[in-house]
Amino acid sequence: MTIEEMAKDAKKATYGMARASSTQKNAALAAIIAHLKKEQASILYANQEDITQAQSAGLDHAMIDRLSLQGRLEAILADIEKIIDLPDPIGECFERVEHDHLTITKCRTPLGVLGIIYESRPNVTLDISALAIKSGNCAILRGGSETLRTNQVLVHLIQEALTSVHLPAQVIQLVPTTDRTEVHKMLHLHEYIDLIIPRGGAALHRFCRENSSIPVITGGIGICHLFVDESADLAKALPVIINAKTQRPTVCNALDTLLVHEKIAATFIPTVLQTLQAKGVSFRLDPKSLEIARSHQATQWTAAQPQDWDTEWLSLILGIKVVSSLEEAIQHIIQHSTGHSDGILTQNQKHADTFIAEVDSAAVYVNASTRFTDGGQLGLGAEVAISTQKLHARGPMGLRELTSYKWVIQGDYAIRN
Amino acid sequence: MTIEEMAKDAKKATYGMARASSTQKNAALAAIIAHLKKEQASILYANQEDITQAQSAGLDHAMIDRLSLQGRLEAILADIEKIIDLPDPIGECFERVEHDHLTITKCRTPLGVLGIIYESRPNVTLDISALAIKSGNCAILRGGSETLRTNQVLVHLIQEALTSVHLPAQVIQLVPTTDRTEVHKMLHLHEYIDLIIPRGGAALHRFCRENSSIPVITGGIGICHLFVDESADLAKALPVIINAKTQRPTVCNALDTLLVHEKIAATFIPTVLQTLQAKGVSFRLDPKSLEIARSHQATQWTAAQPQDWDTEWLSLILGIKVVSSLEEAIQHIIQHSTGHSDGILTQNQKHADTFIAEVDSAAVYVNASTRFTDGGQLGLGAEVAISTQKLHARGPMGLRELTSYKWVIQGDYAIRN
Repeated sequence: MTIEEMAKDAKKATYGMARASSTQKNAALAAIIAHLKKEQASILYANQEDITQAQSAGLDHAMIDRLSLQGRLEAILADIEKIIDLPDPIGECFERVEHDHLTITKCRTPLGVLGIIYESRPNVTLDISALAIKSGNCAILRGGSETLRTNQVLVHLIQEALTSVHLPAQVIQLVPTTDRTEVHKMLHLHEYIDLIIPRGGAALHRFCRENSSIPVITGGIGICHLFVDESADLAKALPVIINAKTQRPTVCNALDTLLVHEKIAATFIPTVLQTLQAKGVSFRLDPKSLEIARSHQATQWTAAQPQDWDTEWLSLILGIKVVSSLEEAIQHIIQHSTGHSDGILTQNQKHADTFIAEVDSAAVYVNASTRFTDGGQLGLGAEVAISTQKLHARGPMGLRELTSYKWVIQGDYAIRN
Repeated sequence: MTIEEMAKDAKKATYGMARASSTQKNAALAAIIAHLKKEQASILYANQEDITQAQSAGLDHAMIDRLSLQGRLEAILADIEKIIDLPDPIGECFERVEHDHLTITKCRTPLGVLGIIYESRPNVTLDISALAIKSGNCAILRGGSETLRTNQVLVHLIQEALTSVHLPAQVIQLVPTTDRTEVHKMLHLHEYIDLIIPRGGAALHRFCRENSSIPVITGGIGICHLFVDESADLAKALPVIINAKTQRPTVCNALDTLLVHEKIAATFIPTVLQTLQAKGVSFRLDPKSLEIARSHQATQWTAAQPQDWDTEWLSLILGIKVVSSLEEAIQHIIQHSTGHSDGILTQNQKHADTFIAEVDSAAVYVNASTRFTDGGQLGLGAEVAISTQKLHARGPMGLRELTSYKWVIQGDYAIRN
């Protein structure tokens, strides 16, 4: 079966899905949970085969950890339960107005067919399938070669669950090869596919943006900042910084650069260096914080190079820079942020308001860790992606972000003058 | 000045615009009105030069009519007044929730820099500039060669108005040449331009979609349908059909195909043929309506060819087809509509609801003319485009559709578990 045939089948399946009731869609999700529970052994067997192959191919530990489902199925099933409990966005009508004898409202509709291109983590297969089904969409999944066996078992079970509730199996399809030319073909099927969502590194996003005739949601790259204002409660600020940097350093919402107001730099930076160094963090320091580090014999640092401020570390490295004002902090963020997640730690509401108004990132934080930029954390159940572009959806994308709307206009045989 | 330098300047201007107050933006719009009134003579002089050149170049009457501003400035100024009166979308916060000790809300932000590529009508220059300014965006306008003089005068006045209220002139810029290679360059400046909006024919939309690395809003192509249900009030239905077909046949929301339920075809179609023929309409008839036409000696028809159902007429031609059920009407629309504007004329609310649920077009009508698909008619003041894609915005795009949002998340030094 060619990718074009798959896309045609998906398009055909959209009509049924758009009309499926919430009850039917939730029944599909419940059936997925039941099938996954029942077939847990065969899922983990296939996953173990993928892991074994990855190990013999010499993939590093972090990569292998990402593709493993061992011990993780329960949490994924809980995510699907959460999605069942969320309200169905389809059919929701909003912005209703009466205008010139017309009743005008917008009603949410599915987007249609989603093309998802992703790497390693097989939980993405389940998260995205569940969100797609609940939002009345169809999806064509193109996962990575390293999890092909796991994904094949998962998608087979999802399709069985769909047909068991009389929905078309073609609602969720897996591209059965990981041949790269198929991705290129997929990016040009704009007649059938409505949206491309790449989940992976910067190179994948660039490739999709440059080669797709279908709209692409780009994102997932986060050079994240926290600014410690002179008024911040430093005792409370420290755990937030620790959390943002060290709780899971390999992900996009982890902290990359700490900006510290000069008035508190001499007292606060030594504490930061000492505490985070104990947690394995090393530092890239600007001249002023370097001076402070030197006088306190902190060891794990190097002098920051200009490109360091434009680097997403994805590891236990933290850039630190001393700034002389809120405005300088904001300017640094405007210049170096990727528009993902940036925050201020402050007791000064006016400073918080200025920061919120002037920092134009998908998620802007006041007194919270950047790690909250996540569909689950923000109440969306799960997420299909974290968008850092401004069109359509920004930040974590859940059910509502997988919808479009139509204008529904009713009159009494109304004519335009 | 290169197009890249213009785009850089526009990007720079976005920071000031994002922070401009509603008062300041409305003052800019009021200043535009004042400048246009004062300089009316020089605008019309430049416009007359464009018209004279178009005439000597042999452009047809419809085209020349579209580029003329003679007698139209008052209506355009009234549109800008309406935009002043509309609420400012920027800063509006919505979907506020408290979740796990976090206060989470989305707040509207400008998109940034809009790239508008359009043809002929110079009112687009003013409509789009006013909407861009009010929504805190910057715009780079690339108008058609046939209105270059008019556009240059208009943009000069807009820039004077901007600087008179201390906003950067670079908020609205006009590409000073109509060299096509500049368009191609513009479509690749994704570092500076956030959104491309083409306004023109299908070829322009295709060119932009296939050549742009910037997201493109496509739309504006309308193969529009009305279905006359067996229960329709036929006396009231007729004026709606006349309005949809004849009020302005050259535009995208004009009626292209009339579907008539077989139970009323024999009585209603002769009336339709007679009334619309008297207004200069000619017909493309399916076999069943052909038979009816023959028995009533209607003259201005030909037998419909298969491709006729996929043609946007943009003229006084109407396709008529007899269908045996609501479901057949819906299937015809799903197959042939461009997803712009489609409606049902009916007294049966259940049929109306089915039609609304199953027809997935940007605007779905019950008992109203398709001609209402227009920003002004639907209460948006004006429109930058009518989108027929599902991403970001669908149907007429006004102020709110020119915005993105950011997540604003506030906690008490919150950390993620």
